[in-house]
Amino acid sequence: MKIRQLFDYDTWTYTYLLWDEETMEAAVIDSVIEQVDRDMQHIEELGLKVKYLLETHIHADHITGAGPLRKKTAAEIVVHKNSGSECADILAEEGDTFKIGSQTITVMHTPGHTNNDITYRIDGAVFTGDTLLVRDCGRTDFQLGSNEDMYHSLTQRLFTLPEDTMVFPAHDYKGFTQSTIGEEKSFNVRAGSGKSFEDFSTIMDNLNLPNPKRIDISVPGNLKCGNLDD
Amino acid sequence: MKIRQLFDYDTWTYTYLLWDEETMEAAVIDSVIEQVDRDMQHIEELGLKVKYLLETHIHADHITGAGPLRKKTAAEIVVHKNSGSECADILAEEGDTFKIGSQTITVMHTPGHTNNDITYRIDGAVFTGDTLLVRDCGRTDFQLGSNEDMYHSLTQRLFTLPEDTMVFPAHDYKGFTQSTIGEEKSFNVRAGSGKSFEDFSTIMDNLNLPNPKRIDISVPGNLKCGNLDD
Repeated sequence: MKIRQLFDYDTWTYTYLLWDEETMEAAVIDSVIEQVDRDMQHIEELGLKVKYLLETHIHADHITGAGPLRKKTAAEIVVHKNSGSECADILAEEGDTFKIGSQTITVMHTPGHTNNDITYRIDGAVFTGDTLLVRDCGRTDFQLGSNEDMYHSLTQRLFTLPEDTMVFPAHDYKGFTQSTIGEEKSFNVRAGSGKSFEDFSTIMDNLNLPNPKRIDISVPGNLKCGNLDD
Repeated sequence: MKIRQLFDYDTWTYTYLLWDEETMEAAVIDSVIEQVDRDMQHIEELGLKVKYLLETHIHADHITGAGPLRKKTAAEIVVHKNSGSECADILAEEGDTFKIGSQTITVMHTPGHTNNDITYRIDGAVFTGDTLLVRDCGRTDFQLGSNEDMYHSLTQRLFTLPEDTMVFPAHDYKGFTQSTIGEEKSFNVRAGSGKSFEDFSTIMDNLNLPNPKRIDISVPGNLKCGNLDD
């Protein structure tokens, strides 16, 4: 399985292309609407047959390119069933699987940042959305986020995977591109090295982050899969 | 061999950590002075024994972190012999090799952006500095850059490597993180798909790029390996 990481500088978002080298069947995880032309050019140059447009959650900080990419590729959009999505082709839940060539992508429901976070697991790698970030995790203070859910998703779901599992997040703000489960178990500053729920919760309750600038247009835009004209 | 890509948002620079998993011997390619603390923390967390601080060239857009990292790790700084470096431990040339554990890093002299560009080749991957960028290449209009040298380095040296060789550049400005030799041979907009030297040269002579903002402090700072107090 091949992974290609792409970055949107304006919203600090990682988009991923995954493909099976034999069949060239592919999935796109967390596209960004402003990057659809770049992504399509890359998809065409690489010769990818995109089957799935996988969203890790309903984003608050950017609008997905999934709708526009569906029009160009006829791929199916996958969002968690808790999302309230008006436009997804597949409302996924824990344990669902999707095939690209001989590769199986498995859905893990890992809420905490929102109530609809999915981690996509494939071939020794996890695409953790805004649940697990490198040395960090997503905020929990809107969109039905929850410290309890986040702590459970991090410590009971993700940190119990094999330590050499590669971690690919939806964002980064410090210049990290990837990690491993072993590293995050040891060094994640919020939930690593056996931190208690109380300590985790104190950190999360004192982040004092401003609301995302684009939340008022991003959430409704993403519930329409980025089909802003519909 | 493990590769970890790191990014500096201010200067759009990729730094790479490479290590041999058995011995944990490591090299750092193209560090950035403002990121030395981040990089050292990562090096310590990963348990890396840094042997070499490899520079792809004397940069004009940022100051290297190699000098400060040498003080913390006792690793050796490697720069091409054409650089005029006042501080490198090793002035490298074509064909030189460095070992990290059982892995061999080989120096390819790939001038064009400057007269001292090195591509470091290791285990199916090339770290191409500002010579080959994703779908692009470095500018050739200062620091003894040369269209002739760049075209030769791209088409006669890099594009003749195996097509599945992974390409890791020193910079990116569009959100790409990596490529392959096969992709660049076909899709590089400046020198790919068999473009003639005349066509390449016309593109390069009409880029009309402003001088890098930091060139007047970066070049002398890099000739001192970022040891700005020396």
